[in-house]
Amino acid sequence: MALIVQKFGGTSVGSVERIEQVADKVKKFRDAGDDLVVVLSAMSGETNRLIDLAKQISDQPVPRELDVIVSTGEQVTIALLAMALIKRGVPAVSYTGNQVRILTDSAHNKARILQIDDQKIRADLKEGRVVVVAGFQGVDESGNITTLGRGGSDTTGVALAAALKADECQIYTDVDGVYTTDPRVVSQAQRLDKITFEEMLEMASLGSKVLQIRAVEFAGKYNVPLRVLHSFKEGPGTLITIDEEESMEQPIISGIAFNRDEAKLTIRGVPDTPGVAFKILGPISGANIEVDMIVQNVAHDNTTDFTFTVHRNDYQSALTVLENTAKEIGAREVVGDTKIAKVSIVGVGMRSHAGVASRMFEALAKESINIQMISTSEIKVSVVIEEKYLELAVRALHTAFELDAPRQGE
Amino acid sequence: MALIVQKFGGTSVGSVERIEQVADKVKKFRDAGDDLVVVLSAMSGETNRLIDLAKQISDQPVPRELDVIVSTGEQVTIALLAMALIKRGVPAVSYTGNQVRILTDSAHNKARILQIDDQKIRADLKEGRVVVVAGFQGVDESGNITTLGRGGSDTTGVALAAALKADECQIYTDVDGVYTTDPRVVSQAQRLDKITFEEMLEMASLGSKVLQIRAVEFAGKYNVPLRVLHSFKEGPGTLITIDEEESMEQPIISGIAFNRDEAKLTIRGVPDTPGVAFKILGPISGANIEVDMIVQNVAHDNTTDFTFTVHRNDYQSALTVLENTAKEIGAREVVGDTKIAKVSIVGVGMRSHAGVASRMFEALAKESINIQMISTSEIKVSVVIEEKYLELAVRALHTAFELDAPRQGE
Repeated sequence: MALIVQKFGGTSVGSVERIEQVADKVKKFRDAGDDLVVVLSAMSGETNRLIDLAKQISDQPVPRELDVIVSTGEQVTIALLAMALIKRGVPAVSYTGNQVRILTDSAHNKARILQIDDQKIRADLKEGRVVVVAGFQGVDESGNITTLGRGGSDTTGVALAAALKADECQIYTDVDGVYTTDPRVVSQAQRLDKITFEEMLEMASLGSKVLQIRAVEFAGKYNVPLRVLHSFKEGPGTLITIDEEESMEQPIISGIAFNRDEAKLTIRGVPDTPGVAFKILGPISGANIEVDMIVQNVAHDNTTDFTFTVHRNDYQSALTVLENTAKEIGAREVVGDTKIAKVSIVGVGMRSHAGVASRMFEALAKESINIQMISTSEIKVSVVIEEKYLELAVRALHTAFELDAPRQGE
Repeated sequence: MALIVQKFGGTSVGSVERIEQVADKVKKFRDAGDDLVVVLSAMSGETNRLIDLAKQISDQPVPRELDVIVSTGEQVTIALLAMALIKRGVPAVSYTGNQVRILTDSAHNKARILQIDDQKIRADLKEGRVVVVAGFQGVDESGNITTLGRGGSDTTGVALAAALKADECQIYTDVDGVYTTDPRVVSQAQRLDKITFEEMLEMASLGSKVLQIRAVEFAGKYNVPLRVLHSFKEGPGTLITIDEEESMEQPIISGIAFNRDEAKLTIRGVPDTPGVAFKILGPISGANIEVDMIVQNVAHDNTTDFTFTVHRNDYQSALTVLENTAKEIGAREVVGDTKIAKVSIVGVGMRSHAGVASRMFEALAKESINIQMISTSEIKVSVVIEEKYLELAVRALHTAFELDAPRQGE
C-alpha cells in the first residue's frame, strides 16, 4: 500500500473520453490498494481560450483578475474526474488550490508555493477517497486566487507529494520516459530506467522538455521520487531519484543533450585589467539578456578575448550593447555567430571516471568536428560547435559512450 | 452618496461587448458618487455548456462536483468585468462566493444563504473600489462550493444588499420594469413606477417571470428596496418596496396576472363527512402533485362537490389518483378539464376598497365570460375561466380597473 501522487497534463484530460481513460487508470491503482492523490491541468486549449477572453477586454489583463479566470480551467477537470471515478464506484472528491489550501506568495500569474495544508487530504485518504486536486493554482494569505504560471501543475504534484511524504510522484506525459538523447536524432536512443535529479536538471535545462525545471528542483530539494510515464501506454517510465551508491554497472554518462537556440558573441583585444568581465557583462544583464556559457582565455600581450552565448532572440540587442562596450573599454572588435549548437554529455558517473571530457573530444575529432567553446560542470561537459554538425556530433557521442540500444538480433 | 447593489443577468454579460457596456453603466454610477457592489451571472449559455459537459460523464452528476464545475461560469464574468472597470480607471476587485464568504447550507445545486461576511466588501468600498461578486454561489461550513440553483443570482444580490444595508438593490433584466399586465396581451399595459413586495410576489407566482420569487421574499423579509430595470435602455424601472401609507392616488389594483398552465379536477357526490378533504388531497400530495386552487361548495343532500387545480403536466396522474379515491370514499364521479385559465387581479389597494371582487365579476359578466372557480386572498382575487376567453378577460379587467395607458393624443 503506497501513497502515490499522479499528475496528468492538459492533453491527458483534453476531452471527456480522455478523462474517462484517466479514471480507468486511477481506478486500477486504487484497486491494487494504493492511496492516490491526482493532480490535473486544465483541458488542453482551455487556458489559452480563457487568456484570449481576458485579452479581448485588455491587452495586459490585471494579473489578479487573470488568475481568477484562468484558475477555472482546472476547476472543471477536477470535478469531471471526481464524477468519473464515483461513477466507477471509486469514492472521490475534488479540491481547488484554495480548498486544499495551497498557500502561495502573492505574485499573480507566477506565484510560488509556500505551504500546503495536508489535513483535508489525509482525512479523505483515511476514508478511502481518491483526492483530485487542481494543479497550477493556489491562494495567497489574503485569500486571493493565484496561479503558478505555465507548467505549474508539475510543481503542484511534487509539492503535494513532498507535503504528504508520498512514496512516489508520477508525472504522466506524452512520452514514455526520459531518453539518452532525442530519438528523432539518434534512432538508437534508449529510455533510461533511472536518472538522478541533478542529471535531469542538466538534461531539462539543455532542452529535454519532459518536465518543468522547477518541479525537478523541488523534487530534488525534498527528495520526492519522481517518475515520468506515458498517460495511455503501459510501461515503467523513468524514475528520477537521488544519487544512491553508484553501482559498478552505472554508465559513465546518462545522456546527450543539445540545444540550437543559442548565439555566440566574442569581444576581441580586451585590455586585461581587473573588473573587465563585469564591464562587459554588466550592460548585457542590464539589458535583461541572459547569458549562458562564458569563456575567457588567458591573456597574451596584455589583451584577452572574451566569448559568451545568449539566446538567439537576444542576439541583435546583445550585439548592439557589446559594440558600445567595446568602444568604451578600448577593445579591438566584436564578432558574432548565430549558426552554432551546444552539445552536452550529462552523467553523475563522470565524477568517478577520469578522462570523460577527453573521450568526448576524441569522438568529435574523429568526425572532424571543430570545438569552438568548452564549458564543464561536475556532471556535465558542454561544447559549442558549428550548427550543421549537430546531428553527427550527437550520434557520435551516443555511440562513443555506449548508449546505443542493442540492435534487433544482436 | 448611496450604496447600491446592482445585479446583471446572463444576457447582460453574454459577450465581451456586453460586459464592456455593463462596465460603462457601472462607471456612470460610480462617477456620480455611488458606492457599488455588482453581482453577475455567468455568460448566457455557459451554465448549460458546463452542465452538458458534466452530463457527458454521468447522467446524474454528483451534486457536490457539479457545483465545482458550474460555479466557474460566474468566476469568469466577475474577473472580466473587474478588468473592464480597471481599464476605465475605476478601481475594482472580483470575489467568488467563497472569497466574500457567502455561507450557505450544504444542499448542493439548491443551497440557501445562511450568512454573508461583509468585512472584505466594506473595506474595499471604503478604499473606493467597485466590488464585483459572483452570483448564484456560496460555500458551506466545510469549505465545499455550493450553488443556489437557477436564478439564484437575484437572491445573491438581495442578500448582499440586506447584509450591507444598501440603499437599493437594482436588478437589470431584458424588460424595463413590471407591467400592469403582459403587454403582448394588452397593448395598453403600463409600466408600474412602484409595487409592493406582496403584490410582486402575487404577480411573480402567477407567471410574471421578471424576478425570482425567492429573491422577492428575501427582499421583503429584510426590507431591501428592489428596482427592476432594463440593462441597456435608460429609464426608472419599477421600484418594489414596502407598503407605505397609502396615498389617495394609489390605484385599487396594481396589475392583472394570468396563467394557462393549470388543469381542473372535480370529484362529485362526495359524502359530506369530517376529514373528507384530507381523504381526497392526501393521496394527491402523496403522489408529489402540487395543488393550487381548492374550492368546496356547501353540501346538499349530504353530499358535496370538491374541485381543485394542478399543473397541466400533473393532470393525468392526478386523475388516476382521484378515480381510486372516488371508489374508496363512495363518490359519484370524477371529471376534469385542461382547457382552463386562471386570471387574477392583484393590489394592496383592495384592502381598503370594498366591492373589488364584485367589480371584477361584473366586468367579466359584461363579456359573457362564465366563472368556474373563485379564490381570494387579502390582496388578490383569482378566477378560473374557459381558456379561450383568457385574452378577452385580461383586456376587460385592465380597462375596468383603469390600468390602460392614455392613448397617444389623449
